[in-house]
Amino acid sequence: MSFSHISHLSCAKCSLVFKPDEVQQLCRCGSPLLVNYDLAAISMQLKPEHFLKRRNDLWRYHELLPVKNPDNIVSLGEGMTPMIPMKKIGTEMGLPKLWMKDEGLSPTGTFKARGAAIGISKAKELGVRRLVMPTNGNAGAAWSLYAAKAGIEAVIIMPVDAPPFIRSEVAATGSRLFFVNGWISDAGKMAAKAAADFHLYDASTLKEPYRIEGKKTMGYEIAEQLHWKVPDVIIYPAGGGVGLIGIYKAFRELQQLRWIDQDKMPRLVVVQSAGCAPIVKAWEEGKTQSEFWDDAKTVAFGINVPKALGDFLVLKAIYETNGVALAVNDHEILEEQKRIVQTEGAFVCPEGAAAFLAARKLSSAGLVDQNDAVVTVNTGMGLKYLNADVPDIPVLQRDEYISNFHDD
Amino acid sequence: MSFSHISHLSCAKCSLVFKPDEVQQLCRCGSPLLVNYDLAAISMQLKPEHFLKRRNDLWRYHELLPVKNPDNIVSLGEGMTPMIPMKKIGTEMGLPKLWMKDEGLSPTGTFKARGAAIGISKAKELGVRRLVMPTNGNAGAAWSLYAAKAGIEAVIIMPVDAPPFIRSEVAATGSRLFFVNGWISDAGKMAAKAAADFHLYDASTLKEPYRIEGKKTMGYEIAEQLHWKVPDVIIYPAGGGVGLIGIYKAFRELQQLRWIDQDKMPRLVVVQSAGCAPIVKAWEEGKTQSEFWDDAKTVAFGINVPKALGDFLVLKAIYETNGVALAVNDHEILEEQKRIVQTEGAFVCPEGAAAFLAARKLSSAGLVDQNDAVVTVNTGMGLKYLNADVPDIPVLQRDEYISNFHDD
Repeated sequence: MSFSHISHLSCAKCSLVFKPDEVQQLCRCGSPLLVNYDLAAISMQLKPEHFLKRRNDLWRYHELLPVKNPDNIVSLGEGMTPMIPMKKIGTEMGLPKLWMKDEGLSPTGTFKARGAAIGISKAKELGVRRLVMPTNGNAGAAWSLYAAKAGIEAVIIMPVDAPPFIRSEVAATGSRLFFVNGWISDAGKMAAKAAADFHLYDASTLKEPYRIEGKKTMGYEIAEQLHWKVPDVIIYPAGGGVGLIGIYKAFRELQQLRWIDQDKMPRLVVVQSAGCAPIVKAWEEGKTQSEFWDDAKTVAFGINVPKALGDFLVLKAIYETNGVALAVNDHEILEEQKRIVQTEGAFVCPEGAAAFLAARKLSSAGLVDQNDAVVTVNTGMGLKYLNADVPDIPVLQRDEYISNFHDD
Repeated sequence: MSFSHISHLSCAKCSLVFKPDEVQQLCRCGSPLLVNYDLAAISMQLKPEHFLKRRNDLWRYHELLPVKNPDNIVSLGEGMTPMIPMKKIGTEMGLPKLWMKDEGLSPTGTFKARGAAIGISKAKELGVRRLVMPTNGNAGAAWSLYAAKAGIEAVIIMPVDAPPFIRSEVAATGSRLFFVNGWISDAGKMAAKAAADFHLYDASTLKEPYRIEGKKTMGYEIAEQLHWKVPDVIIYPAGGGVGLIGIYKAFRELQQLRWIDQDKMPRLVVVQSAGCAPIVKAWEEGKTQSEFWDDAKTVAFGINVPKALGDFLVLKAIYETNGVALAVNDHEILEEQKRIVQTEGAFVCPEGAAAFLAARKLSSAGLVDQNDAVVTVNTGMGLKYLNADVPDIPVLQRDEYISNFHDD
């Protein structure tokens, strides 16, 4: 049995077919390419129980991934992040069956490691030597490190007002880094020009077909970790939206493989910040693609994406699964983050907190209920969004003792 | 079969026996207590292959852990961190069989999560309501979060010159935090006084018996991930040394269980910084315990421990396994950290880099060779040691393009 059962690439819009053995970027029509597999062959030979004995990372699904030769795997231990029951805060919200898929336990501390692992491994397989990537920061950190491991040169372009620790992290990885006084969309334009001028592989979101394949493993894992039962709802904080597109693709593939219920898809919920909510606006208006969001601004920096290339795929995933898109305010996000830390001990990132907040709002509105198994995706560690300013904390001298440890 | 096969506690020095069902701190003789299990009963009923179907975290070893009732488990998905082959840098060092046990993929980004998970779960089982902990930072962050999840009040005392990121993290967890203008040893004295004055559980290193049990799971995992083959060498950066004591205990237990070779222990190597090397000094002098190290100072802040309560256990583990203790310089540590990022894409912490540097030095000195399977323990993410200062990086305006991405 082949290591990978990749068959071909196809355009997500016009369905034009491309070969998987050479570098491909966008379709001629300007749309992203999706990876296809020989699912019939896989379902004949592979059963869910076979995964029990496999390596404990996303490479356990190798038949369903694009890398053909295992020698090309570039891995830092990504995938198989925990699914954590969030009983205390879930019960408080009226959702006793609330789970968190905690992507904070990934190399570089965010789910971006999945896309980077598959994207870089496949780039290595295709002979790529140099790439360029626009990023809000976390993807840049991940791609830099995997590129270093693969021996691929990486040029990273990111907004200068990214969170300070993420800026420092990307700088520490040793890639060639540029800051831009603007948004990720500006970084994207610079990346496109640099790719053309210097013959670089453009690793922008959805401009290479393999990052989705990394992200989709979140869907496989959610299914496997729930013993191949489909959850009722999955809530995802969407910037570029690749994670959601990937999760949707994963559940459709699992249906074709007959490893899950044929009749049930999870309802896919997108949450964005009110300061940058192009997909929510499009969904509310019943549209199939979004408009550029001017002056985008949110504390949840990873989802500060004014216009996503894959917006139409995100919207399709919501419509086809009877999902919802909703926006939440920054101050509410930060309050929710604090509640989660203090009740569940989980130091989630603002994007992850937005997903919990969405669960809370959907529960209040009666759009999900206590019988629903609800999975929130925490896309990264809260840690990465800290700054070095420490709040007012008492400093004791060596000969002092604590006289009273309560605030009063 | 019982969930836990804990039998009793015993003093590591005078062997006095204690009951496991009530709060215990140090032995009357001032030494740490160790946890004992009914290993004979476990070995009759449990086989290594049974773990394949179990949950993918350290709780898979529950018979060998102290928590009796699974309802008391406080988990954030800790354990089963990846073992990553480090072929490029290993080959360069003359150690093609070099592995990294990457504890950076833990809740809170460090191996401290293991001790906190078991320590807090058992504290919950014993009815503890309030605890105090002196820390260099990472343990404080971990214990704060697990305590929050368990509903236990935590008082954390740490040196004010801890890395800024870690200070911010502990502050963000919502525990009652104090800084001390001194070393962890000063924080320890304050903790002891606060424990006595306010009737707090003293969760200082080795003053409660269960943290070791969390840390020892690193040893079980290394064995399981190497398919129950014992590696030749394990290199560990030692501060308080609990991880090494735990790994030693784990391999001894695995021998008694007959799950590994009866005749082979891994050689246990301790690395410390030349700025704080009390255990190295003791080992070089052939002593069985260390002396207080004055004016301790190192960039590897987690191992800046002038005198460890469990020093005698660390030294015993080195002597009994034909191990080594060695000190390395801070500037070499930072160089090694950079090399690892740039060749292996692994952003290890300074303590982890020290372990790789130790491997390099032992290889140069002929103390380990190319046939040896060598495991380095990277105790946490490099990320946590960053500061918010970004090096000199070009900032482009929105209408600019990259004209040349090479430094020249």
